[in-house]
Amino acid sequence: MQLFIGNKNYSSWSLRAWYLMSKFDVPFDETQLVLDTSDFYDELKQHFHVQKVPALIDGDLQVWDSLAICEYINDAHLSGAGWPKYITQRATARALSAEMHAGFMALRNEMPMNIRATRKVTLSSAALKDIQRIDEIFSQQQDMFPNEWFFGDFSIADAMYAPIVLRLKTYQITLSLAAQQYCDFVMRCPVLQKWITQALTETDIVQCDEAGVEV
Amino acid sequence: MQLFIGNKNYSSWSLRAWYLMSKFDVPFDETQLVLDTSDFYDELKQHFHVQKVPALIDGDLQVWDSLAICEYINDAHLSGAGWPKYITQRATARALSAEMHAGFMALRNEMPMNIRATRKVTLSSAALKDIQRIDEIFSQQQDMFPNEWFFGDFSIADAMYAPIVLRLKTYQITLSLAAQQYCDFVMRCPVLQKWITQALTETDIVQCDEAGVEV
Repeated sequence: MQLFIGNKNYSSWSLRAWYLMSKFDVPFDETQLVLDTSDFYDELKQHFHVQKVPALIDGDLQVWDSLAICEYINDAHLSGAGWPKYITQRATARALSAEMHAGFMALRNEMPMNIRATRKVTLSSAALKDIQRIDEIFSQQQDMFPNEWFFGDFSIADAMYAPIVLRLKTYQITLSLAAQQYCDFVMRCPVLQKWITQALTETDIVQCDEAGVEV
Repeated sequence: MQLFIGNKNYSSWSLRAWYLMSKFDVPFDETQLVLDTSDFYDELKQHFHVQKVPALIDGDLQVWDSLAICEYINDAHLSGAGWPKYITQRATARALSAEMHAGFMALRNEMPMNIRATRKVTLSSAALKDIQRIDEIFSQQQDMFPNEWFFGDFSIADAMYAPIVLRLKTYQITLSLAAQQYCDFVMRCPVLQKWITQALTETDIVQCDEAGVEV
């Protein structure tokens, strides 16, 4: 399999698919493209109707979109282990993942993923509301599974929220104790640390993702 | 099961979950709330952390988000029949559904679902690009399954795109022959016609969804 990703410093959607596949030791080749360059679009155009990352090739099959890639990996390569075992937890995990997939627009716009940076931003009330909801989700799941992933074992839902954990760190957002406990737990994951280490070696600058002021 | 939905004339996300459940004859009670009223938020607040429709209650379980509801119904009530049988088609169906779930923002903003209306809108280049991509998707699938659903049998992917078919009609968008063939096929579905008939009995006006000029 070949996974196309963007800059590790910036590409939050790429991280989600990469994290799932890496955490479950699914073998894949990684093709990294620098976001917003002509090479990026030219390369993706050769294989995909949609020129976005992440994007996956598995034999003759092309899969685009982070959540669809996660579902495909779960379906074809993990025998369902990408989601929690119990059907009600699986439903909640998918609802959380879908909420992330289509929502949190203000947070995503005002706090772009930028792993190498430490910044302060002035947030809109919509972004503050997004953070409040994130805090609620993290806290709720920590109440059930303290110092664990959302549903005990790692699942696609954790992969979907990993870039949020990184953003909360970059923009130094204060959370409730339980929510911070989840963030600290996630940050200790060696697979995520591998992505971060690689991100820190990158030097390309994507100007539109450079929000806030240095602190 | 209890499915919370919004106005049938306007609520495109509600239609997606309702359509899947109705098409597969999954029994459910329908609770309709008028969008953007205090009753709407008060009622949803009693059951859900997120006050959006569609939202589903199944026993002790609450599921929010249209795509997550569809995945849950597929998982718990359809033994997987909500997606195509073959794994590669299933991957493509999920990619198309995810693309709809998180994308087509310009089209969604500029052409809100408004079943009772016939309108003309001046579209941005982003919305025109969205329509071009919709045309590509519909045509591609029709090339493989002429006068059929996207993958032959009805699947969640068709439910995800049904509100687009209705929008293309409301705003009188000209499509390629193959794409129009898919729209015509979908419009003949008696289950969708049931939703439309009910939508046409509604009289509430949601001002922000009243785009364009009457023709």
